[in-house]
Amino acid sequence: MTFQHKLDFIINKNNSLLCVGLDSSLEKLPKAFQKKDYPQFAFNKWIIEQTHDLVCAYKPNTAFYEARGADGITELKMTCHYLTKYYPEIPIILDAKRGDIGSTNEGYVRFAYKYLGADAITLHPYLGKEALQPFLDQKEKGCIILCKTSNPGSGEFQDLGDLYKTVAQSVVKKWNSNGNCMLVVGATYPKELAEIRKIVGDMTLLIPGIGAQGGDVEMTIRAGLNSKRAGMIINSSRGIIFAKEPRNEAMRLRDEMNIYRKK
Amino acid sequence: MTFQHKLDFIINKNNSLLCVGLDSSLEKLPKAFQKKDYPQFAFNKWIIEQTHDLVCAYKPNTAFYEARGADGITELKMTCHYLTKYYPEIPIILDAKRGDIGSTNEGYVRFAYKYLGADAITLHPYLGKEALQPFLDQKEKGCIILCKTSNPGSGEFQDLGDLYKTVAQSVVKKWNSNGNCMLVVGATYPKELAEIRKIVGDMTLLIPGIGAQGGDVEMTIRAGLNSKRAGMIINSSRGIIFAKEPRNEAMRLRDEMNIYRKK
Repeated sequence: MTFQHKLDFIINKNNSLLCVGLDSSLEKLPKAFQKKDYPQFAFNKWIIEQTHDLVCAYKPNTAFYEARGADGITELKMTCHYLTKYYPEIPIILDAKRGDIGSTNEGYVRFAYKYLGADAITLHPYLGKEALQPFLDQKEKGCIILCKTSNPGSGEFQDLGDLYKTVAQSVVKKWNSNGNCMLVVGATYPKELAEIRKIVGDMTLLIPGIGAQGGDVEMTIRAGLNSKRAGMIINSSRGIIFAKEPRNEAMRLRDEMNIYRKK
Repeated sequence: MTFQHKLDFIINKNNSLLCVGLDSSLEKLPKAFQKKDYPQFAFNKWIIEQTHDLVCAYKPNTAFYEARGADGITELKMTCHYLTKYYPEIPIILDAKRGDIGSTNEGYVRFAYKYLGADAITLHPYLGKEALQPFLDQKEKGCIILCKTSNPGSGEFQDLGDLYKTVAQSVVKKWNSNGNCMLVVGATYPKELAEIRKIVGDMTLLIPGIGAQGGDVEMTIRAGLNSKRAGMIINSSRGIIFAKEPRNEAMRLRDEMNIYRKK
């Protein structure tokens, strides 16, 4: 089953476009978890138990695990294996933002898919399609290419000559022969999101920037839905996992998305 | 001591612009090393023992260690700690090609500098200066930004409107207030290397693409030297570490570089 099929199934089953970002920075965990043997894994398990019927994907960001070296990587693996075992229908997006030359990328392919068992990975476009071919060749796995990122300074190069539009055009026309490409577009840029939606047709977009970063749910949904009133994976990380009641916050956000999705 | 100071010292001491890339893919190691308890570390130690008086830096690429998950990360750490302990004068460049939004990059900063003890890291420019600030703020550590990469397809976006020149201009004029920025330029593009040298003045450039990738030593040196007849870190990975006699190959390459450097 491909990443896209898995995603379509769970969006429908859980009636949700919400992706929960497992940005489980050790320092920010509740004290009760910090004391445990595997604090990041224990925390993730707790979040997963509370939210698994409300999400369309989980997205751990490698930076928060690598920060602890081999110990963190072990807990990232435990998290992914837990999901694969108990919730195999929920896709795992590895937010790793990788991108090296071709032969080197094979190491990252192995990390993401053989070692962790993820379903998709986020990638930098700067080295071009030729370099990313080892990722693109994994037909069952998603390649989610950075296009217009959510950070305040993303325009420095991405807006130059509308580079983000060129990236969107190249990915949809030239990179996607296996039908496994998607794009990252920040909720903090609804105008650009609408432009990119026009360029890429029904392609699924991964949308970070809701919540802590300031993106607005209504504007994001209006700008980004595809012709099937889906085609979006909308991520919230800190806003959910560090909320007082993560389940309530996930439900609130999923339901808010669905209001605008149905209008 | 800053990365630049450390580099200037060792270039002078070892009379070398040669960086050895520790791309120690487990599958490619000689059989005798594959059987050891810590095969990648054992191999790296062997390479370091043979080449430490011939190099200006070592550059492990994270992909070859991450491919093995936590075990590989442990051996990468062992390698970096070995270098820090026995050869503290030789800088370690972590070839990680990272780049996320600001707060997330702090995890990678911790990985590279606190956990591994590296001296510099390679970075994607796509998210802009604002996102990379946590790296730029580490005054003692080098930020080596991808500019014109060595792979055959690097032109897809990098050549659009001469984006690589814009990256070089931005880095030299706006990003470098701590004097800790450098650029990656592939030896496979000597024309662009000469153009970038004109833009960045004496800034140090990291040059991959010699050897296995086909870059020519003479053309690279002629195109890339700065006004002090240095300013380059020229990397060879597979060409040295998997050579029949790594020491001889490192010496041959260092000496070849010095012939053209002195002309």
